[in-house]
Amino acid sequence: MSLPRLAISIGDPNGVGPEIALRAHPQIADYCLPLYCVDPEVMEQAASLLGMHIPEDFDMIALEQPIVIEPGCVSPEAGRYSHASFMKAIALTEAGETDALVTLPIHKEAWMQAGIAYKGHTELLRDHFGKEAIMMLGCHQLYVALYTEHIPLKEVPAKIERNALARFLLDLYRATGFDDIAVLGLNPHAGDNGVLGDEEREIEAAITIANDTLEAEGLKCDGRPFFGPVVPDAAFTPTFRAAHRHIAAMYHDQGLAPLKALYFDESVNISLNLPIVRTSVDHGTAFDIAYRGKARLNSYRNAVDTALQLSDNAPSNS
Amino acid sequence: MSLPRLAISIGDPNGVGPEIALRAHPQIADYCLPLYCVDPEVMEQAASLLGMHIPEDFDMIALEQPIVIEPGCVSPEAGRYSHASFMKAIALTEAGETDALVTLPIHKEAWMQAGIAYKGHTELLRDHFGKEAIMMLGCHQLYVALYTEHIPLKEVPAKIERNALARFLLDLYRATGFDDIAVLGLNPHAGDNGVLGDEEREIEAAITIANDTLEAEGLKCDGRPFFGPVVPDAAFTPTFRAAHRHIAAMYHDQGLAPLKALYFDESVNISLNLPIVRTSVDHGTAFDIAYRGKARLNSYRNAVDTALQLSDNAPSNS
Repeated sequence: MSLPRLAISIGDPNGVGPEIALRAHPQIADYCLPLYCVDPEVMEQAASLLGMHIPEDFDMIALEQPIVIEPGCVSPEAGRYSHASFMKAIALTEAGETDALVTLPIHKEAWMQAGIAYKGHTELLRDHFGKEAIMMLGCHQLYVALYTEHIPLKEVPAKIERNALARFLLDLYRATGFDDIAVLGLNPHAGDNGVLGDEEREIEAAITIANDTLEAEGLKCDGRPFFGPVVPDAAFTPTFRAAHRHIAAMYHDQGLAPLKALYFDESVNISLNLPIVRTSVDHGTAFDIAYRGKARLNSYRNAVDTALQLSDNAPSNS
Repeated sequence: MSLPRLAISIGDPNGVGPEIALRAHPQIADYCLPLYCVDPEVMEQAASLLGMHIPEDFDMIALEQPIVIEPGCVSPEAGRYSHASFMKAIALTEAGETDALVTLPIHKEAWMQAGIAYKGHTELLRDHFGKEAIMMLGCHQLYVALYTEHIPLKEVPAKIERNALARFLLDLYRATGFDDIAVLGLNPHAGDNGVLGDEEREIEAAITIANDTLEAEGLKCDGRPFFGPVVPDAAFTPTFRAAHRHIAAMYHDQGLAPLKALYFDESVNISLNLPIVRTSVDHGTAFDIAYRGKARLNSYRNAVDTALQLSDNAPSNS
């Protein structure tokens, strides 16, 4: 069986991206074939700065615009370079030459200085594919998908509508194959039978619609994947987590505050519902520690593992 | 120096209350004088059921209505008994004979069967003292106070008003003496400078009003205790928690989902802003394991420790 191939965008070359790629390579090369979107000349500089050698199996694809690394500097050249690396990685994955895409961190200000109009990877992906990505964060122990993301809290309750939520749940299932997804309520105590809010009726209806739709389609997994509405402050307790690791949260902080409380270092950021699978470390360029051998590899290794899991999107891969 | 005195209400005698009191007594008697609101005849039954002896220094105050313990049974007699124990503990603490009150769990249905019109301890306390209690949950590592509690999420944004919030913050400071309180924002990323909601302006104003008021009063602690608005999903990460252990949350799940994710077993429930300090275990009567020697003592010991800390309400006691 051939190993899965991953396109790795190198991120801002003045940050921790090249170091993470180099140091983590021996570990991940056991179970996948990473293809690094970076010029060999640039990696040679990075290796030299780190006092390391580039391994023989460190497979690179040239961007043909090598730059000189300036550790810790925000520059338009580095912004352009990280953008070119990302676009190459998208093209490779879109063309099927790689199975998924893992991004190392870019620097927003460097992109701005380079005249790149996006705030980050996700915005560019949405625009590139013309599709609403689902944002999911987490790690092996706990994944949290967000039904609403970057909107004011007061706009959230009106978004809880059965058909829109059912579409989101179906997209989430199709993108992950997770066969056990806890759908959170909106209100304290999940509304306590309507006493503390009634949006849970819409959530309950959405769960039924989504489960029924999958059943009618001849769902591959056992049973009906969605359940809830789950009491939000009970969904992250040790007992609940021991049984259920996939959460659909109604809003940003409902999902991310508990996730980051529990798994801040391990978590990765995942873009779902796009033609390609993309995962990312959930930290930045860390200019302050670039090329000092201090970058932590946890989040990157988890981003690689998650990309591999999701690119083989069978319902049993949860 | 004399040890502080605690009134302990025994809870439903058919549940785990008497066992917890008896087993935890040797541990807590080292640093406080618990006064158990229970008839000696009832504790003799409890000790006998557990194959234990009542220690010599196990100080009890008779309720003069002893009952026969029926392990695991919901009964109006047990409901009346736990109510009488609670009222005695309130009276002792109100009269200054004890410094604080720790409650063991009552059973809501038993209270209902006994014709007691309250859903629980907190409701009775609010009514008894005619004051809005502040609900705070947590443990030594992390305390979370709730600005809004049991209301629908959609009603929360309109409650974020500078003067009402400032009053809450001042009450919280006066009740706890905490000199470092992180006040959370309402919106994702604390509104991201107004892009994701603007309630943070009210929160910022409330923080200023509260700090200014304390400064004008000649605040005992160093500096201004309140800061924020803090990004909600950053406030529970390991780094933030290492520096700040007191959180004012804008709504129920914002505070309790992360707290219960992290410290479910250790947490206690605290009623503040009342003429007396009251803490409670955050579990129920656990009828299924009553009198089997299995009850966990964590939450009770923490409730005792917290009651002691808060009853000595100096700004340095955080």
